[in-house]
Amino acid sequence: MPRRVALIAGGTTHKWGVYPGTLRDIVSEAAKACFDSNPRVNSRDIQGFIFCSVFPERSAYQSHTAPWAAESAGVAPDRIFCRVENMCGSGTVGIRTAYTAIAAGLADLVMVLGAEKMFIPNRQEIVLNMLTGVDREWEGSTGLTAPVQFALAAQAHMNKYGTTEEHLAMVSSKNHRNASRNPYAQFPKPCTVEEVLASKPVATPFKIFDCSSITDGGAAVILATEELAKDLTDNPVYILGTCQAASGFNHANIPDDWADWVILSQAAQTAYNMAGIKPQDVDVAEVHDCFSASEIIEYEALGFCPQGEGGNFVATGGSDYGGQVVVNPRGGLIGCGHPLGATGVAQAIEIFRQLRNEAGERQVANAKIGLNHNLSGIAEHHVVIYGRQEVL
Amino acid sequence: MPRRVALIAGGTTHKWGVYPGTLRDIVSEAAKACFDSNPRVNSRDIQGFIFCSVFPERSAYQSHTAPWAAESAGVAPDRIFCRVENMCGSGTVGIRTAYTAIAAGLADLVMVLGAEKMFIPNRQEIVLNMLTGVDREWEGSTGLTAPVQFALAAQAHMNKYGTTEEHLAMVSSKNHRNASRNPYAQFPKPCTVEEVLASKPVATPFKIFDCSSITDGGAAVILATEELAKDLTDNPVYILGTCQAASGFNHANIPDDWADWVILSQAAQTAYNMAGIKPQDVDVAEVHDCFSASEIIEYEALGFCPQGEGGNFVATGGSDYGGQVVVNPRGGLIGCGHPLGATGVAQAIEIFRQLRNEAGERQVANAKIGLNHNLSGIAEHHVVIYGRQEVL
Repeated sequence: MPRRVALIAGGTTHKWGVYPGTLRDIVSEAAKACFDSNPRVNSRDIQGFIFCSVFPERSAYQSHTAPWAAESAGVAPDRIFCRVENMCGSGTVGIRTAYTAIAAGLADLVMVLGAEKMFIPNRQEIVLNMLTGVDREWEGSTGLTAPVQFALAAQAHMNKYGTTEEHLAMVSSKNHRNASRNPYAQFPKPCTVEEVLASKPVATPFKIFDCSSITDGGAAVILATEELAKDLTDNPVYILGTCQAASGFNHANIPDDWADWVILSQAAQTAYNMAGIKPQDVDVAEVHDCFSASEIIEYEALGFCPQGEGGNFVATGGSDYGGQVVVNPRGGLIGCGHPLGATGVAQAIEIFRQLRNEAGERQVANAKIGLNHNLSGIAEHHVVIYGRQEVL
Repeated sequence: MPRRVALIAGGTTHKWGVYPGTLRDIVSEAAKACFDSNPRVNSRDIQGFIFCSVFPERSAYQSHTAPWAAESAGVAPDRIFCRVENMCGSGTVGIRTAYTAIAAGLADLVMVLGAEKMFIPNRQEIVLNMLTGVDREWEGSTGLTAPVQFALAAQAHMNKYGTTEEHLAMVSSKNHRNASRNPYAQFPKPCTVEEVLASKPVATPFKIFDCSSITDGGAAVILATEELAKDLTDNPVYILGTCQAASGFNHANIPDDWADWVILSQAAQTAYNMAGIKPQDVDVAEVHDCFSASEIIEYEALGFCPQGEGGNFVATGGSDYGGQVVVNPRGGLIGCGHPLGATGVAQAIEIFRQLRNEAGERQVANAKIGLNHNLSGIAEHHVVIYGRQEVL
């Protein structure tokens, strides 16, 4: 059996949005916030360091960023270090990489740090950087950017299941409301369904409030073996199950009906099986709402509600406080912003805090099992399921 | 106990150097060569895909390259996929990432593919791309490029131990001679010690023949669980031990005496302990000769000879056929070229072939244990030790 692995610390940069410094500064601040969250961890004991960042080559003119960022984080790992890049899902891929290293016995204590500096002086260059994430030759060049891809999925879902623009706006309104209780959120101002519907059009059916944003930000967590975790914290949060899957890259090759993310259902099922739980056991979930419609499709693919019922699920409060599963209590990508490599790590920190009963006014009552879903386009999904000690 | 992991297939693009196609073409050709090497593997069974590439963002204007490359490789993984980037050591980091995923039980059959397109039309841009690998703000801007860093290490070693320019030239001459028996080598023409010494100066004490090159190339391997490996090949090559370590990034912060790579000694010792072997048990080694002096310092840090005796080791044939350990039989980076993300994977393929007695006229007699060392600058090292079934 692989060794059990737990989260034991986590912290983010203080306020996401336009960061008044370099990528290096973001790395340092995120690492400090993480160490500050658990004074029992000594930075000299960190044996591994995984850096999650999508385009430091373009935003900081720097590749070879694992040791570069480790140095800025104040750690000197002697077992494993690696930079991972899976576009919007890089943070969760980093956590999985640390998980496997610890589970396989190569290291005992590993920091995962995600950071992105997306705001750069040249506005045109920001768009070009985002375009590196889609198929450059076939999609970027023809305008099939991320908002358009997800808008097409939204239209497919509306057409197939009768999902409405109001349903989408309900997701946005819920996540903005949750973000209003999150100190680091980029967009902490609540907004009504009517305000979402009246906001500026982006790509039909999305209005600007249906979309996540360009964001600077950083987040870091520390993972440990079960034995070390028990030494270093009174409330470890364990990884119970995880999976990743992709059904293609170029959207012309993706076999799925875009209204049903079959590949996510498969990945989630593998993760549920590994964790030995069912979707109904999940108390709190951080899911990838890069656009409002994504969250609705994810309710279904993750098994929180039947196929086609995602719109009704949000409309009846199934994903809100008091509902079946509280989804995106930190405010999601729509409320917090989406600094690519940092997002998955920050999602994990929210689950960590919720399962430790440390989420303050965002706390989900009696949360024991949390699920994190992070994606990299409609055809590439990453799932990690976490649990408190008592559910092992 | 983590699960045992083995190499079961491997192949490279046909001839390294200037590749007459795109990065995508390199990926496709490397994957095909890998599948061609083992007809028992069905590409539909591949559950994981690790892509190793340093700057596709700059050479192909493409990030999010794990699913992008998986598609070009003809695989659709449903357990793990990830792009790793650790500059010159990316290939070995990719193999370690696949190793941990399999050892920890997340996947059973994983392809690791390294590819780099370094030759681009704008010559100045090639240099700028390489500069992203050093500390941009403090080193790149002041001229502390890779050749200069390693030249300073060479000078330190010459000053401390009496190593000579002739010793360095002997490494280059040996590796060019080995490359002459390797069909994919970029520089397959043998050269004498005198020819190396008379070649064009680069950074004292390095002449052009002491240096590896800008290279386009690709390489892919498949790793499997022990059980699957026994099904899919008659000669699996097992991973016995592995470690990674870094002692810093900015060279001003690296505590080591540059003549002795203490951090490599530590990483190697951890890997030897994990494998349960001693340096003297290694029959064949692929080590990172980005510059001739590196190989000499590595003989010592890897324990093949005593500290300070590296020059004498090559001079007395210790690293050549018939010596204590055959080092760089495929011709090393000096003979084969150095397409960053592909190098570590190609090194592993050479060990794979040597331990299966499939290296043709390069075959090291009766090779049972092989070591692969890949680095990412003088302060960041990656070691993997491989063995035949009979040494388990």
